[in-house]
Amino acid sequence: MGKVYLVGAGPGAPDLLTLRASEILKRADIVFHDALVHPRTLGLAARAQKIAVGKRSGRHSTAQKFINKRLVDAARIYKVVVRLKGGDPTLFGRVQEEIDALRRAQINFEIVPGVTAATAAAAELGVSLTRRGMSRSVTLVTPRSAKGERENDWAASVLAADTAVIYMGAGLAEAISAELIRRGRSKDTPLALVESASLPERCVFHGTLADLPRLARLAGAGPATVLLGEVLKAAIAKPSAAAIEEIEALLRQA
Amino acid sequence: MGKVYLVGAGPGAPDLLTLRASEILKRADIVFHDALVHPRTLGLAARAQKIAVGKRSGRHSTAQKFINKRLVDAARIYKVVVRLKGGDPTLFGRVQEEIDALRRAQINFEIVPGVTAATAAAAELGVSLTRRGMSRSVTLVTPRSAKGERENDWAASVLAADTAVIYMGAGLAEAISAELIRRGRSKDTPLALVESASLPERCVFHGTLADLPRLARLAGAGPATVLLGEVLKAAIAKPSAAAIEEIEALLRQA
Repeated sequence: MGKVYLVGAGPGAPDLLTLRASEILKRADIVFHDALVHPRTLGLAARAQKIAVGKRSGRHSTAQKFINKRLVDAARIYKVVVRLKGGDPTLFGRVQEEIDALRRAQINFEIVPGVTAATAAAAELGVSLTRRGMSRSVTLVTPRSAKGERENDWAASVLAADTAVIYMGAGLAEAISAELIRRGRSKDTPLALVESASLPERCVFHGTLADLPRLARLAGAGPATVLLGEVLKAAIAKPSAAAIEEIEALLRQA
Repeated sequence: MGKVYLVGAGPGAPDLLTLRASEILKRADIVFHDALVHPRTLGLAARAQKIAVGKRSGRHSTAQKFINKRLVDAARIYKVVVRLKGGDPTLFGRVQEEIDALRRAQINFEIVPGVTAATAAAAELGVSLTRRGMSRSVTLVTPRSAKGERENDWAASVLAADTAVIYMGAGLAEAISAELIRRGRSKDTPLALVESASLPERCVFHGTLADLPRLARLAGAGPATVLLGEVLKAAIAKPSAAAIEEIEALLRQA
């Protein structure tokens, strides 16, 4: 029987992978990976069969139950099975369903943590999510729910925390902004939307809670996080690497 | 003028460092590091001067203002200056004070994100912090405050989130447990205390919110996180590597 490694690939940039994840990928026999994992990260698994099972909101995806079954089946054939997920596996990765399936089948597994999108976005913004005298709590939350899922109150968690990082929220920008303002969060609360954090095509949009719908319309289709709270006042406006290249090219021409 | 890299060293294990952090350390001229950074991680900075400026609760520490000044001074002498912090720099690392000082001195800086203690602890427990139909919000919070600091309501954030990870809370176990129960969180809420996550000496203690003071007394002096919420029901009891070695040694003798 093989072992299944539930591995965090980090926020996007291939060099934000951990050394441990890198070593496990090199030893992998088979890798089941999310859609957003970087090709260079997959390239580390030189001798492995690579199977895309990624889910992206609104696109074709492999049903979770089928992924669970494939992991169990693979562990009966291969020694080193890797399930490679964007960010950290234990945050918004549906990894518990995979763990439950592996435990039921009595298959050995190990979680390898990764850098999550929240802190990669903070790094892009050049800002700390906690700050003495201002923020001692950071909620990581998603307003997205699956069909038929019990509806926990995502907004309560945002309202009670000093800083909030909203995952998979850009497509729900209108609803997020309206709900939080209706429930008493100031429309002037500093906010940033970070798209494709850590990748060359990253974009950072700065504004307030009231601006969120407009900022989300400006953003592209890359994975995005919304950061909210007083700490964002200290965020740095930073052009994307692509924008810098464009400016440099224009300067060279001039 | 040099550049200051504000680098996350990850939760403890040297191979949970990112590839990027590893490359920057190799190029470093000088490294200012926290007390808890692993010697093997520091060893990567082979040609750098290494200066411990670490803070640990209740022990000797370098004043934050002095650290800020040393970073600025170093950037005026060296090309690659690294400020190496446990976990991720933007979570409970006081990095904003360093950023503010660097910006005032017009010194170039970059944040390199790292794996934070919350997800390393979840990995130890073999459990996801989010779970469909059960947890869509995770608060990362500390009840600790500096003298004279404005007191934000840490407990409100725990009460409103589906899952909570409390940093630097083990020493305040009585107060945490009492306050959360007084304000309506069930005393039977599943809880785990993870000490020295990702290190060979790690220890995991399982119980409920009411058990927290007892679990904290069992724990040692290593850095600890407290995890709280329904998702913890699925956590796996797992002996430490040291305990496994001890058992194996006994088995070899027998």
